[in-house]
Amino acid sequence: MQTYSRHCILELWDCNINLLNDRNLIEKLMVEAALEAGAEIREIAFHKFAPQGISGVVVISESHLSIHTFPEQGYASIDVFTCGKRINPHTAAYLIAKKLEAQKIYEMNLERGIGEIKIVKNLNPITKTI
Amino acid sequence: MQTYSRHCILELWDCNINLLNDRNLIEKLMVEAALEAGAEIREIAFHKFAPQGISGVVVISESHLSIHTFPEQGYASIDVFTCGKRINPHTAAYLIAKKLEAQKIYEMNLERGIGEIKIVKNLNPITKTI
Repeated sequence: MQTYSRHCILELWDCNINLLNDRNLIEKLMVEAALEAGAEIREIAFHKFAPQGISGVVVISESHLSIHTFPEQGYASIDVFTCGKRINPHTAAYLIAKKLEAQKIYEMNLERGIGEIKIVKNLNPITKTI
Repeated sequence: MQTYSRHCILELWDCNINLLNDRNLIEKLMVEAALEAGAEIREIAFHKFAPQGISGVVVISESHLSIHTFPEQGYASIDVFTCGKRINPHTAAYLIAKKLEAQKIYEMNLERGIGEIKIVKNLNPITKTI
């Protein structure tokens, strides 16, 4: 099993706030993003907070996708972490951003499982081949 | 709800390989790390892969802790992501590192929920107060 992994971190601002507090919709779009990126889903855990906010994780064979929403601020944090080079986490992360109608996105991309954690500009195309 | 969050990313190498493939033990130590750091656990999702490797996430009120283990390489990737300033993710992450007997650790600490994702040297003490 390859330890080489890619981690796409997105900060989504000015999302459609009507979407950010809908647990079923958030879970559905996280699952869809995983599947559309070609990941294999293993476990799903979502939680709705009172009065608002959703946290959820989709565990995939290739690692995980996570989301935490703050409807009152129109903000969601996204992590898509994938081992190997078959799945592009950037693809899945941006599918989520698009569906949440994020107007402002801050992004950081990491390569992991290779020693020092490496910040990379772009996860597409593959920057490291093992 | 504060969007300000801290994210401690650890790469653990040369762990005790006998521990890395024990699902119950990994789940127990992740839960313990969350509780010892003062987090409130909401959901737990762990998966054991064949022939080896564990992936798991503990969703907490303050965001999440995740782990992915690669027993054959003695490697585990850890993320502890916590919103607000009450829980120190660094504390929880290093509790996990210690219990897995990691001999080599690569670390990155981020501040999130504030605009651009910010790399910080040290999450302890609090570097930003909101």
